[in-house]
Amino acid sequence: MELSEIIEQHIASIRLPEKPAGLYQPIRYALEGGGKRLRPLLAVQACRACGGSVYDVMPAALALEMFHNFTLVHDDIMDRSAMRRGRPSVPARFGANQAILSGDAMLTLASQLALGVPQKVVAPVAAEFNDMALRVYEGQQLDTEFESRRNVTTDEYFHMISLKTGALLASACRIGAMVGGADDRTVEALGDYGLQLGLAFQLRDDWLDTFGDAATFGKPIGGDIINEKETWMLITARHESHGELDAILEEDLADDEKIHQVRRLYERLRIGERCDAAAAEHHALAIAALDRAVFADEALREFFVETAERMASRKI
Amino acid sequence: MELSEIIEQHIASIRLPEKPAGLYQPIRYALEGGGKRLRPLLAVQACRACGGSVYDVMPAALALEMFHNFTLVHDDIMDRSAMRRGRPSVPARFGANQAILSGDAMLTLASQLALGVPQKVVAPVAAEFNDMALRVYEGQQLDTEFESRRNVTTDEYFHMISLKTGALLASACRIGAMVGGADDRTVEALGDYGLQLGLAFQLRDDWLDTFGDAATFGKPIGGDIINEKETWMLITARHESHGELDAILEEDLADDEKIHQVRRLYERLRIGERCDAAAAEHHALAIAALDRAVFADEALREFFVETAERMASRKI
Repeated sequence: MELSEIIEQHIASIRLPEKPAGLYQPIRYALEGGGKRLRPLLAVQACRACGGSVYDVMPAALALEMFHNFTLVHDDIMDRSAMRRGRPSVPARFGANQAILSGDAMLTLASQLALGVPQKVVAPVAAEFNDMALRVYEGQQLDTEFESRRNVTTDEYFHMISLKTGALLASACRIGAMVGGADDRTVEALGDYGLQLGLAFQLRDDWLDTFGDAATFGKPIGGDIINEKETWMLITARHESHGELDAILEEDLADDEKIHQVRRLYERLRIGERCDAAAAEHHALAIAALDRAVFADEALREFFVETAERMASRKI
Repeated sequence: MELSEIIEQHIASIRLPEKPAGLYQPIRYALEGGGKRLRPLLAVQACRACGGSVYDVMPAALALEMFHNFTLVHDDIMDRSAMRRGRPSVPARFGANQAILSGDAMLTLASQLALGVPQKVVAPVAAEFNDMALRVYEGQQLDTEFESRRNVTTDEYFHMISLKTGALLASACRIGAMVGGADDRTVEALGDYGLQLGLAFQLRDDWLDTFGDAATFGKPIGGDIINEKETWMLITARHESHGELDAILEEDLADDEKIHQVRRLYERLRIGERCDAAAAEHHALAIAALDRAVFADEALREFFVETAERMASRKI
């Protein structure tokens, strides 16, 4: 069986109490939404690469996927997002209050799952998991604060996404390595890999939101422009266009026209290519970090190389 | 120094990251709201009674207080409560989105704190903590579901409050006993004590909401009646008044008049006295549970007896 199938099966068989159904049904719904299962996959492969077993790391892998989905459930309340992965979001389907409470239960279930790793690594894994969670909240906080600012720098942007997106991918790799019995140097190296992967992922995500294909990407294009989201592209274009970007954003234009005008400005400043180049840079840093990791199973190095490749060039 | 002062000092010195201030400031605000600090006090005394030290149990005691305050922050969003402990609630003061995110961070901080107990009890304490948290959410879920029902039984009510209120007090005692090195029998006995204490506490809380003194109780009287909250009193009065209670609730009356009429009905059916008697029953069960606990320090038994006494007769 493919590893991704094994992970999918384990996610489907996470045991949740039956009652009260109203509390646990939205959790099942959230987990069934699919997604790339990137975090559990990274944890499992990092563990195997370092000489550990799929079985030992699986509780932590599931914890990471549960945590990731918990953040999506609560984010969808805060952002009032009606859709997620082509279906109604949890708050849209079950109501905001239910999404708060079921989300809380997901966070506790994630902590509970993480405690299922072998006894000798429970303490460091649980500590890493909680530290990571706080970093993710800090990133979310900064992202929210950026919404009311117009002077965010690219440094601040990278700091924010290293917390909001990078921390979880980094921790998936670190926890996998820890369970696999890796030395500190390899834990750090794989953590750096995950972080750089996260930065490349987010830059590509921003790029896709503006230049992607709506049908392939699975959501409407241009949302970030309409929401004036402080992405690397927006920040760079603002900095370089001498007021032109803000002028477009401030104009009372139809959404389509606004997206069109901003994209034209981006094209003139070659923002898309440069965003791609920035993603490629972090892809390269991910590969470089990988070189510092000592693998028990060298055959798995290819998985990490390919995953980084895919992140920096993905279309969905 | 008084034990309650020691606990207060430890709460005040919980280390939170400085930045981003927007994330952590509401947490400090929530913790500074005061309250009885009943949960950490129970944990510390249970630990001492079983032969453990204040120092060993303090991380778990703080985790329980952090968790309790987390539930209040998220409850106040779900219930749209503007006030808490005589001040604006966290969502009223910082906004609902901020309350969601800072609340999430409180739950993670609580898990993090709980991991600070001595190594040999980390695993059982963390497991107990997560199990407890799920029971609390389950109780909250049932409480919410009761709002849209008119046929809740007193059995269902007791099941709900044993989860929503009882589970946390039970766990405070259990965790304290576990850290103190108690045998299973004493852990169970103190857990039962905490559960019965919780039931007495909740019955008294419901009683105070209807028959208490607004100035002493710190919030307006009659809120449960106006919100038609499924308390033991309301359920019993509905069952025994042959439609009279529901008729009053359905009438288009001013709040004051509605409260007045329901209280008159309660008085006729002697609901207040009987609610008090039910609280006294659970107080007696708490004391009986205490008799099954083996204490290393018998002098501390008095604390638990007095606390149960206070719960069943408190005015605030």
